[in-house]
Amino acid sequence: MTGVVVLAGGVGGAKFAAGVQSALPDPAALTAVVNIGDDFTHFGLKICPDLDTVCYTLAGLENPATGWGRRGESWRVMEAAAALGAPDWFRLGDLDLATHLERTRRLRAGQPLHEIVAAFCAAWGVKARVLPVTDSAVPTIVLTDEGELAFQEYFVRRRWQPRAVGFRFAGAENARPAPGVLEALHTAEAVLIAPSNPFVSIDPILAIPGVREALAGKPIAAVSPIVGGEAVKGPAAKMFRELGVAPSALAVAEHYRGVISHFVLDKTDALQAEAVRRVVPRVLVADTMMTSAEKRRALAAGVLAWVRGARDTI
Amino acid sequence: MTGVVVLAGGVGGAKFAAGVQSALPDPAALTAVVNIGDDFTHFGLKICPDLDTVCYTLAGLENPATGWGRRGESWRVMEAAAALGAPDWFRLGDLDLATHLERTRRLRAGQPLHEIVAAFCAAWGVKARVLPVTDSAVPTIVLTDEGELAFQEYFVRRRWQPRAVGFRFAGAENARPAPGVLEALHTAEAVLIAPSNPFVSIDPILAIPGVREALAGKPIAAVSPIVGGEAVKGPAAKMFRELGVAPSALAVAEHYRGVISHFVLDKTDALQAEAVRRVVPRVLVADTMMTSAEKRRALAAGVLAWVRGARDTI
Repeated sequence: MTGVVVLAGGVGGAKFAAGVQSALPDPAALTAVVNIGDDFTHFGLKICPDLDTVCYTLAGLENPATGWGRRGESWRVMEAAAALGAPDWFRLGDLDLATHLERTRRLRAGQPLHEIVAAFCAAWGVKARVLPVTDSAVPTIVLTDEGELAFQEYFVRRRWQPRAVGFRFAGAENARPAPGVLEALHTAEAVLIAPSNPFVSIDPILAIPGVREALAGKPIAAVSPIVGGEAVKGPAAKMFRELGVAPSALAVAEHYRGVISHFVLDKTDALQAEAVRRVVPRVLVADTMMTSAEKRRALAAGVLAWVRGARDTI
Repeated sequence: MTGVVVLAGGVGGAKFAAGVQSALPDPAALTAVVNIGDDFTHFGLKICPDLDTVCYTLAGLENPATGWGRRGESWRVMEAAAALGAPDWFRLGDLDLATHLERTRRLRAGQPLHEIVAAFCAAWGVKARVLPVTDSAVPTIVLTDEGELAFQEYFVRRRWQPRAVGFRFAGAENARPAPGVLEALHTAEAVLIAPSNPFVSIDPILAIPGVREALAGKPIAAVSPIVGGEAVKGPAAKMFRELGVAPSALAVAEHYRGVISHFVLDKTDALQAEAVRRVVPRVLVADTMMTSAEKRRALAAGVLAWVRGARDTI
């Protein structure tokens, strides 16, 4: 068994994947399998926020101020479009737009998404392999008390304020994993679930037929995105509450029950370790706050060493 | 009868329309009916080069260095896209891209093209009315000795080097004039055909069912785009030669035989006036080189005064 797979969504997933990439002697040993449930079409362009965030971050091109988009971004196009009455609730930077334009052109020319991502990663100098979990469109729909909302309508336009009552991954049952995904899972020595949103970053990956089955029987470690009862970023804690569950590392572990063999919770939540051990056999307490490149590398290195059989505290 | 209609294509059409707009006491009395035959889809975006050139020029936003695109343009998006391997044969500036993005968004939302153009003109402060000749897609196909080429493939990508043997306006027979076009033609005191390319700027306008009929019986003046046997800009002279006709003002007049009642040729070609009079009843010799805002205004004012019944030389 060789290689490490990280299942990743947005900013937390991108940072954790970058940590793993920097912690591995050979960065090419990392395969990031990325959520495509928040992909959508805007202005006629195909936009893949999670894939782009992961790629930009692995390339060192990410915007550290926002966590999404590109470093050194400018806003010439959006400003001129806004003067024509264009909606600006989803901000598209000039450099970021270039990605969407060329991706859209290639998709319309028939190139599958995973090949496009590979070409972009080569151009940006990404050493790890990045795979969309599927080449199919499987849009996440948020079921709210106002009805069904397309993911970006809920997440960006409405700033995740509607009350979530459930989630749907439209067409997942007919989607196939992108070429390379199942192979990477089968051959990986370990699969790491990044501290991404369980409901809308990781579950859409697990919903693609074949993915759960490919995880069976190998070390699967999840890092909690809930620290101190709140999400490090985004709506994960709010979603837990709206679904009737108190947000906690334990709640995350229970969410992944049956999928994971290992669970990493933040030192802030060390007191929950005992309870989590009743849900997941192996539990690690670590500093999971990836506030610097060094800290994300250290977290990844510690998790990898632990999954490979070393100590239970880092 | 009130109002003036200009039939216009690219840069020459935009400059002439701007001249007419500035020569009229009420600029809103001008309706520019614009070619849409060179519209195409690129990177998933609907691009309307002639409409944009006319609108930018009427708004005073045009790039004087290129004749197309916008003043103060930048190229952040295209440079970043080229780094991903994007084709760069059709240059898309950042400000120009904003137009394409918002037009594409509105078209996909179901807004007809003529309404979009009107909204953009309002935002840009254009006082004249600009109408696409039709809301339908009627792409110009250039028949060449290499086979059929989509217009922008021929015009920009191949720099109009393939030999033209004919032109086709795909789907014209089923297109309908955009709302307002026939009304503007019926009520106009005069229709002016700008010094645009007869084959690929004006003929695609005349090919829309109803347009030729609406022109019947009123003063229709064409300004020659051929001066001294060459096109002021673009492939018009080359096209005449490839079709077996020596390019000249006379050849342009013969091309429009049966459509126009008045013809304007450049003073350089004054010796052709007699021959042209055997094709078109009224002929004006003028300085048609629109090298400044004042010269394009003077040309337009002179043509308008002449069509209204004044002297035959300006």
